[in-house]
Amino acid sequence: MDKSKEFEMKEIKGGVTAPQGYKASGVACGIKQSGNLDMSLLVSDTPANAAAVFTTNKMAAAPVHLSKKHLADGQAQAVVINSGNANACTGDGGYEDAIKMAQVTGAALGIDAHDIVVSSTGIIGVPMPMDKVEAGIKDGAAKLYADGGGCAAEAIMTTDTFVKEHAVSFDFDGIEVKVGGMAKGSGMIAPNMATMLAVVTTDAAVAPELLKSMLVSAIDKSFNSITVDGDTSTNDMVVVVANGASGAEVTTGNEAAFQAALDKVCIELAKLIVRDGEGATKFIEIDVVGAASAGDAKKAAMAIANSNLVKTAFFGQDPNWGRIVAAVGYSSAEVDASKVDVYYGEEKLVENGRVVAYDEAKVGAVIQAKDIKVKVDLKLGSGAARVWTCDFSYDYVKINAEYHT
Amino acid sequence: MDKSKEFEMKEIKGGVTAPQGYKASGVACGIKQSGNLDMSLLVSDTPANAAAVFTTNKMAAAPVHLSKKHLADGQAQAVVINSGNANACTGDGGYEDAIKMAQVTGAALGIDAHDIVVSSTGIIGVPMPMDKVEAGIKDGAAKLYADGGGCAAEAIMTTDTFVKEHAVSFDFDGIEVKVGGMAKGSGMIAPNMATMLAVVTTDAAVAPELLKSMLVSAIDKSFNSITVDGDTSTNDMVVVVANGASGAEVTTGNEAAFQAALDKVCIELAKLIVRDGEGATKFIEIDVVGAASAGDAKKAAMAIANSNLVKTAFFGQDPNWGRIVAAVGYSSAEVDASKVDVYYGEEKLVENGRVVAYDEAKVGAVIQAKDIKVKVDLKLGSGAARVWTCDFSYDYVKINAEYHT
Repeated sequence: MDKSKEFEMKEIKGGVTAPQGYKASGVACGIKQSGNLDMSLLVSDTPANAAAVFTTNKMAAAPVHLSKKHLADGQAQAVVINSGNANACTGDGGYEDAIKMAQVTGAALGIDAHDIVVSSTGIIGVPMPMDKVEAGIKDGAAKLYADGGGCAAEAIMTTDTFVKEHAVSFDFDGIEVKVGGMAKGSGMIAPNMATMLAVVTTDAAVAPELLKSMLVSAIDKSFNSITVDGDTSTNDMVVVVANGASGAEVTTGNEAAFQAALDKVCIELAKLIVRDGEGATKFIEIDVVGAASAGDAKKAAMAIANSNLVKTAFFGQDPNWGRIVAAVGYSSAEVDASKVDVYYGEEKLVENGRVVAYDEAKVGAVIQAKDIKVKVDLKLGSGAARVWTCDFSYDYVKINAEYHT
Repeated sequence: MDKSKEFEMKEIKGGVTAPQGYKASGVACGIKQSGNLDMSLLVSDTPANAAAVFTTNKMAAAPVHLSKKHLADGQAQAVVINSGNANACTGDGGYEDAIKMAQVTGAALGIDAHDIVVSSTGIIGVPMPMDKVEAGIKDGAAKLYADGGGCAAEAIMTTDTFVKEHAVSFDFDGIEVKVGGMAKGSGMIAPNMATMLAVVTTDAAVAPELLKSMLVSAIDKSFNSITVDGDTSTNDMVVVVANGASGAEVTTGNEAAFQAALDKVCIELAKLIVRDGEGATKFIEIDVVGAASAGDAKKAAMAIANSNLVKTAFFGQDPNWGRIVAAVGYSSAEVDASKVDVYYGEEKLVENGRVVAYDEAKVGAVIQAKDIKVKVDLKLGSGAARVWTCDFSYDYVKINAEYHT
């Protein structure tokens, strides 16, 4: 699933400004009462191709609708994201505020407003404090730096406890191509809800349609293969911008290495979101193999990853294979109860649907570690999927119950 | 949805032995280490019609497979249920044990083994202690009483904290007909998982096919309209037995009052399961109205009811309408974001997808009560659904994390 091993690539420092031809900033404009950074700007030096995938939530926030429209032509030169206010459930006024954000950003940068991607994350149902937002955009536009990616990444955080960035480079016919990204998210959370947002940049040139299809493929293996609490926010967005500054041109036929790099950056960002999951004490990788199809493998893996019972058992450090087997059973995947095998780490606990004599010390070591691997073999075919989840602790309840609107 | 108000019926004492012509017992045979009751028997004085709905989990336990077979002819005279061991993930040996349970019960009662419904709930992956089980069945068969329903209901409990029974009677053309039931379940829980089980009896005569279709209809409004943690166990079963002892014959055309009584008993039992939800401190009734279809209403209502974020907000006594709106948005129901209204009790918080000025004191009183009503009006059509859920507390995590296999 993760093809990074098949292609030579190396991890490099930074995030969205690691590739050539990008500048970014993160400033505080007072949307957050804490005074933390809350306005993030990313700009390509030149017009660029871009593609994005948005939340499927029917209550999608105003900036989601606007950014879909702005990306319809496959072009974008800047991304403006505020944190602290999601501009969701804000009606027509909210949509006008999103348009205003694009206009102010465009004016400050000398870019057509239609080439601006707008995103917001934070509290919902509250009108945007547009005076602060406008001042923040102008301030950010004056503070753009070629190494500003870290500040931009910090400015999109809400309840995240650490900055999430990843970048790689690889050789493309003698040209060094870079892919970098930033993300935020730790569940769909306080104030009212949070959001999974990610911005990926590259200095390769990629045509919009190909860029979109490669992004969809990468998201399937990364952001759509993680879960913290199973809730889908109104503001989720992943956008990729390709400005071609490296001189490398990725086209159908030579795209495999770039796909691998894009996959790698998205997967690492997705894994960072799970590691920052609300109240998480464990990071759990779930492989389902031997499924009748890849789709079935994903369904079974996500059923395990989303089960509150499985997640609380991991928090309790109990190798509760019964809950895993039950989750596989109620997923819509094809399952033969008399064939299912379950492994914790390398140790097989269940064979052909029945518990076997296993080494309790070895399983105990697996379950007590911070990083845990679980494998389920359905022994029906060659379908496989890998997903990541975290455990479910008292602190998840604390974080989500104690916030007051 | 609940038609009980349209038909005259009265609540009566007891459960499965409230209708005429049934005897039951509950004994302790040592399957549970606690020494609590763990063998439940219900017997009709005469052969009876019966119908059941079983778990859709593909890892369904051995007794589920056997009982499906035994009920294929629409006939059953007795139900034997042990608690403490689920006889799940036990392979061919487990299936033979389930057959043995039917045989021993049949022999003790002088009934054909094929007319016995068998069910098990408790720990999974452990072979049944058949010596104890056989002794328990024989003991139970010797202690059958016409008022034994309460003992039978107690003997099916696992982590339940109280016995769950309900019964009603109504006039059917001058004949008093009774419907009674017992249930167990408080989530899918420790030891390895628990189960939702319910047995309903009536002294009306109902042909098997009609009985099945009426049961399916009742379950849709009751057991399939509740959620504690969204997990579906390997052992779930709801069975209804109709022995005709009252002399009343329910047929297509005169079935409405019986359907209402069956609905009422199933709904009350389902609500008791939610009230006993693991760690629950709140009982929440969710109405979705104005949906494009009844199916859409159910999808939106269950998305709200299953959301960890919604459930933790109720535990925190916070009127977090944003999480409710988001859950509606990611359900697969048709939604127009600019039309959604949300009420807590009688107080409207959201109108046309936007928060409105609401009376905080009134909403505070709603959210601080133990029983809470939430209504969502999608304003698209006449589809409606009512579901019940509980909140999500520290104790849910505690109960599910602290058990060790």
